[in-house]
Amino acid sequence: MDTIIALATPPGTGAIGVIRVSGPEAIRLTDAVFKGKKLEDQPGHTLHFGSIHDEEGRLLDEVLVSLFRGPRSYTGEDATEISCHGSHYILQEVMALLLRKGARLAKPGEFTLRAFLNGRMDLSQAEAVADLIASESASAHAIAMQQMRGGFSNEIRRLRQELIDFAALIELELDFGEEDVEFANRADLKDLIRRILRLMHDLAQSFQLGNAIKNGVSTVIAGRPNAGKSTLLNALLNEERAIVSEIAGTTRDTIEETLHIGGVAFRIIDTAGIREAQDAIEAVGVAKTMEKVRQSALLVYVFDVVRTSPEAVRADLEQLVGPDTRLLVVANKMDLNPYTSYAHYACELLPESAWVPVSALNNMNVEFLKEKLLNSVLQGELRTEHTVVANARHYEALLKSSESLSDALRSIETGISGDFIAMDIRRALTFLGEITGEISSEDLLDSIFSRFCIGK
Amino acid sequence: MDTIIALATPPGTGAIGVIRVSGPEAIRLTDAVFKGKKLEDQPGHTLHFGSIHDEEGRLLDEVLVSLFRGPRSYTGEDATEISCHGSHYILQEVMALLLRKGARLAKPGEFTLRAFLNGRMDLSQAEAVADLIASESASAHAIAMQQMRGGFSNEIRRLRQELIDFAALIELELDFGEEDVEFANRADLKDLIRRILRLMHDLAQSFQLGNAIKNGVSTVIAGRPNAGKSTLLNALLNEERAIVSEIAGTTRDTIEETLHIGGVAFRIIDTAGIREAQDAIEAVGVAKTMEKVRQSALLVYVFDVVRTSPEAVRADLEQLVGPDTRLLVVANKMDLNPYTSYAHYACELLPESAWVPVSALNNMNVEFLKEKLLNSVLQGELRTEHTVVANARHYEALLKSSESLSDALRSIETGISGDFIAMDIRRALTFLGEITGEISSEDLLDSIFSRFCIGK
Repeated sequence: MDTIIALATPPGTGAIGVIRVSGPEAIRLTDAVFKGKKLEDQPGHTLHFGSIHDEEGRLLDEVLVSLFRGPRSYTGEDATEISCHGSHYILQEVMALLLRKGARLAKPGEFTLRAFLNGRMDLSQAEAVADLIASESASAHAIAMQQMRGGFSNEIRRLRQELIDFAALIELELDFGEEDVEFANRADLKDLIRRILRLMHDLAQSFQLGNAIKNGVSTVIAGRPNAGKSTLLNALLNEERAIVSEIAGTTRDTIEETLHIGGVAFRIIDTAGIREAQDAIEAVGVAKTMEKVRQSALLVYVFDVVRTSPEAVRADLEQLVGPDTRLLVVANKMDLNPYTSYAHYACELLPESAWVPVSALNNMNVEFLKEKLLNSVLQGELRTEHTVVANARHYEALLKSSESLSDALRSIETGISGDFIAMDIRRALTFLGEITGEISSEDLLDSIFSRFCIGK
Repeated sequence: MDTIIALATPPGTGAIGVIRVSGPEAIRLTDAVFKGKKLEDQPGHTLHFGSIHDEEGRLLDEVLVSLFRGPRSYTGEDATEISCHGSHYILQEVMALLLRKGARLAKPGEFTLRAFLNGRMDLSQAEAVADLIASESASAHAIAMQQMRGGFSNEIRRLRQELIDFAALIELELDFGEEDVEFANRADLKDLIRRILRLMHDLAQSFQLGNAIKNGVSTVIAGRPNAGKSTLLNALLNEERAIVSEIAGTTRDTIEETLHIGGVAFRIIDTAGIREAQDAIEAVGVAKTMEKVRQSALLVYVFDVVRTSPEAVRADLEQLVGPDTRLLVVANKMDLNPYTSYAHYACELLPESAWVPVSALNNMNVEFLKEKLLNSVLQGELRTEHTVVANARHYEALLKSSESLSDALRSIETGISGDFIAMDIRRALTFLGEITGEISSEDLLDSIFSRFCIGK
């Protein structure tokens, strides 16, 4: 291992900028440019004021050095953090000096890669570090934090252990193969596999939620011209961001805004109105709406309770709602027609649970809509103490692992030889092992850590 | 004093973000949100790993806390620095939590203001902190660093002490006023004042250089169309930044580029060609050139040794060169006319020291031009061990102080009463004291520190 350095703070001018140094030579290297106490003689977890001088003795900066001794450091190696004045010029000069002294510029994520290689965290925890830094909502933060703290890894490790025990039984049978013994009751085995499959399935299921939380829940607001979509969006955002206008068809371009409800980010997409297109541009708008609805996690259909008949609403829903569409129907302008009730509009595409009477203009019931929005995603399922899969790589590994397990189950059911069962289980174990990095390849590590920022 | 917090690292996503906390409650406040060792029981200059939890016990981040005990801290107060993951969301949540616990958001420069108020640095040193962070060249860095380390303050303090001793003598005389004694020989007094004035004058003189270094040396490149100004600029910058073209009058807008030579930043301004304007736009270009020359610290006049006669060069210089113009004359395209020599072009406006034969196209002698550029600023005078005034406020204070001293000198010469002399000296002392902050007002401090970045 060589000694690596990187700027750990964002680029730009600030009060301070921190240069991170890690590797076997980290302390000696820092000592070589630092005038103050001799760092090699100091204990770890201490702070030292001093100055940095270049080869000609030119004073580059007065700094504060944080000293860490491996394995009690982020990377598990000896490390220092040099806290400089936040001047681009100074940081550049100090980094150049350290490079001349023999350090190497770290690659993206290389500090965290070293933490993984030195056993300070497993792979899914390392990935959570990047998610944590990128997290922009309370729920994304909570998922990343739980993953970083090892909650997800523990669950995967428990699954893996059960499979390992199971595989051990099968392989024991194989050793005694000639004698045709069965150490494990086949019915019990099937039950065990089914239970594990169910656990995996639940985890994989949580990915839809986890992914929505991590990347925001894409939410389309659609409806006829003048249904009040822009006004509703403004009421939700509490700001005048969309241009509200009485002229039908005003909102031509989709506008994306982010709305935070209960710690979940909703990326709200306002669209052109649905109606028989009267000109080419609007036709594009309508086509876009349909496409957006298909791509989104959630559809909020808005209609005007004064002007739009139950038949028209049903016609629109038939056009918009697919078999997997999560739907909320906002009956807008309730202030103008307060006696409107769900009963008038009930149909098979519009369950009562999706019905949200609102007056966007008067901000009436908008909070209730927000609750509905949040519940439509959570469906009572998001408690951050539950494990939620938010990483596509983990999701894929879980799917592949359960495929292999399903193969194993089929093998047992059809009475196929223990060899095949063992092979299936081993494959399932490999996929699970890739999640936590118990099994990893250089390519996998490269692809994971290259997505990190430099200095992490 | 209340306890203040601020983000000390630049905004944006990075590996880490640091929140600075300073004030009497800094450690108690940090303890209130930090799960790990009890910080109040720990010695200063130590590092502590732990986690930050909000009021509901929600884990916000795993952090590293740097602990400082006053007066051994930047501000002189108890202080902590909380090193979080560099997520905007996390930093915001941790800051909000600290605010709820009773901290206050720091104003720009408030940490440094406290360092000044607590006697950790004088005013000119505090100002140097901001200059240091803003410094973008080796020389600007060197001046700011020397000022931060107290070099300039010491010089001012020495001057001040001499004046105080002097004032003491005068005032002693006043005490014995009735007796009409003279404790100080008037000729000696005048010599002393003259010597101090000379020192002040030298310091004030250095401001032109200091300011140029701090803000970059504004350098106009001017010449006739096709003299090769853009090619020269490119040769200097070693990059194709200006559009080079054979069409006369191509460069209409002034382009500003920064060129670093020997640690000094030259802000180079390329201009439209000087000639009889043939259209309105060019007329504007020419007028702009004249204006830029007047506003700049340095003029680089470029001409084509093939096409431009000594008479034409002289005519241009007469138009461009004022009494204070620092001038370099670049005889360009020497490759096409290698026998051209200074003797052909010598005139009273063009001393040999300003003559620089070059072929911009072939990159011939461009390094020599760079040396000339650097020397024209330094004139052998910049050695960073010399004190250079780079702060307009200090420059003004020096000017006002020497005015008062000159008044004192005149008073002595005209035999005016010691009262007036003493008053002049006191005024001179006040102005000097404002530089280091021995004399300061709230307004002055406000105006100085409001220019700092937050977190410093």
